[in-house]
Amino acid sequence: MYGVLSGDRIVLLAADREGYEQKGYGMPRSSSGRRAPPERTISLALEEAAYLVETGKLEITNETKGAALTLEELFLYALEFQPNFGARYLVFKDLRERGYVVQPGERDFLLYPRGTKPGAKPARYFIRIFSERECLAVMAILQLLQLAQNMRKEPIIAVVDDESDVTYYEVRELPHEWGENREVREEIAGLKKEREAISLLEDKVIVWDSALAEHLHETAFYGNLTKEKRLLLSLVEAAYLIREGVLAADTEQFGAHAATVDREFLSKYTIYADLRDRGVVPKTGYKFGSHFRVYPGSQQTHSTELIHVLPETHVFSLPALARAVRLAHGVKKRMIFAFIEGDRRRYVFVGRKKL
Amino acid sequence: MYGVLSGDRIVLLAADREGYEQKGYGMPRSSSGRRAPPERTISLALEEAAYLVETGKLEITNETKGAALTLEELFLYALEFQPNFGARYLVFKDLRERGYVVQPGERDFLLYPRGTKPGAKPARYFIRIFSERECLAVMAILQLLQLAQNMRKEPIIAVVDDESDVTYYEVRELPHEWGENREVREEIAGLKKEREAISLLEDKVIVWDSALAEHLHETAFYGNLTKEKRLLLSLVEAAYLIREGVLAADTEQFGAHAATVDREFLSKYTIYADLRDRGVVPKTGYKFGSHFRVYPGSQQTHSTELIHVLPETHVFSLPALARAVRLAHGVKKRMIFAFIEGDRRRYVFVGRKKL
Repeated sequence: MYGVLSGDRIVLLAADREGYEQKGYGMPRSSSGRRAPPERTISLALEEAAYLVETGKLEITNETKGAALTLEELFLYALEFQPNFGARYLVFKDLRERGYVVQPGERDFLLYPRGTKPGAKPARYFIRIFSERECLAVMAILQLLQLAQNMRKEPIIAVVDDESDVTYYEVRELPHEWGENREVREEIAGLKKEREAISLLEDKVIVWDSALAEHLHETAFYGNLTKEKRLLLSLVEAAYLIREGVLAADTEQFGAHAATVDREFLSKYTIYADLRDRGVVPKTGYKFGSHFRVYPGSQQTHSTELIHVLPETHVFSLPALARAVRLAHGVKKRMIFAFIEGDRRRYVFVGRKKL
Repeated sequence: MYGVLSGDRIVLLAADREGYEQKGYGMPRSSSGRRAPPERTISLALEEAAYLVETGKLEITNETKGAALTLEELFLYALEFQPNFGARYLVFKDLRERGYVVQPGERDFLLYPRGTKPGAKPARYFIRIFSERECLAVMAILQLLQLAQNMRKEPIIAVVDDESDVTYYEVRELPHEWGENREVREEIAGLKKEREAISLLEDKVIVWDSALAEHLHETAFYGNLTKEKRLLLSLVEAAYLIREGVLAADTEQFGAHAATVDREFLSKYTIYADLRDRGVVPKTGYKFGSHFRVYPGSQQTHSTELIHVLPETHVFSLPALARAVRLAHGVKKRMIFAFIEGDRRRYVFVGRKKL
């Protein structure tokens, strides 16, 4: 029941060791890679020790003070090692109270499946901790995905808000095969290659031929079909149909115009074309605050994904990320961020994770 | 039934005048302030003329061509006067089809209440038109509000998305008396002024005294009360309670620390303090992607507003604005943007407008 401070670890005497180990506390080797403590002791992370102190299951001897450390003193001590100890502790406590065993590491926490503990089964998730006021760079998300792959664990982002509530997010890269819909691809390939003349209205393109207009709209859900059977296409839709040889226009000239009208045109078009090539149907996601909403096929009535195209240099404020994910969840869609990396198109899903 | 092009207006012969006027088309004086056309004619805006041509109720004589203008020719002609004619026309058509009389002006449209028309009653709204790809500066919103006040009309923002759908937003500045809740103000005034000592955990403040912790949480909904009856306060909550003399800390030192930890601290605190002074209860709006959610009183269980603090130099991408408004709507709250203008705090509501 008594522990002793030792840098960023708390060392317990051997007599008490077993009870803590059984409940998943302590590590044979500290996270900073130091050697295991002498055989008959166990060392606790600061978050573990603070939780045991707060719940009255541990006292920490302070030789200078000659009495047990208060929780307040322990917090202030811990802050010297971990400036974000407050957020770390809130996450640790939240997960412990939900019945999980958590192993705090220097940067990330390891989370074990419910009912298991270190040694019994490998950890399934690793958790990176943020506060609501912090920013999250897209590059950091991509690095997290890389780390997850190397560690063979699933990454979780924990955000501690100003009310000390914790929200968990899962982050997953969609597999290369995502969205491969042969059926819609064939429908598109079957469109008559008429090279139909069009009119350009700044950021809209009009297809005047009513037969083609109806055909494009009905077989592959292009554009907005007016009562008068004219088709109003967005710039990305028109650019794709020009590339496919369905509409007549000079590709380069059209692209140059579109890029002048919409400074995001090139990145939006790159992702739009990739999605169409995969056989899914992207339409504007404006009403949901995203670039695209995506239908798995042209006959579907409910779009299943929201896709927002971002440069890799983008930095999220965490409330902005929360807003996007929450909105998508509210309309029963997955929030997906799309990135262009040279020739590669990457799709990263971020969703609320219930633990 | 025949009109003649005349710059950015289409002039009709007197014989046809009455029928159009009765349906709310045409103006006695063009929007650019030119004098009324000779008595026995009427002039139509390009949007009006295009709508009448598209619905087969007007032909426009083209002397050079020797035949009636096609709709395509009229569109291309109109684009020379209005680069955003496409968006303007889609909004005009959408409103006309909903049974409204609309008077296109050089920059904004005037919208008349259903069933009335120019001359009969004054216009109630004026509409500014954007495309989804455009940006909207906060300064432009504030100017719109000023203009609305001068014109004694309500402003509406119409956004044409990439699918040619139109979404309408109302924009309203909340009156100075907004949120004046005497009851909660008194509750706060009644808090014991204990100048209780606190601990600072980077971006959280702990109140250790359990009686004060419970009192602050229960009477005025401050912080997060843990099972152990400790109160975890956010930086803005703590700063406000320090100012009010409830907690002991050096105001300036605390403010300096908070501003280091959270670069948005000062603007968030300014609005937080103003909201508390008004007697409403702000809590973090993180889960909704905003700085604050606001309860009209401390005993309310449903927050009614989301508040996001923005610098006046902020520029919205329209999808970002749509996302905020849509999310708030989905959780039955009003989306409010807060601005700090010197000593003045301004609250601007933006909501979806059903027309």
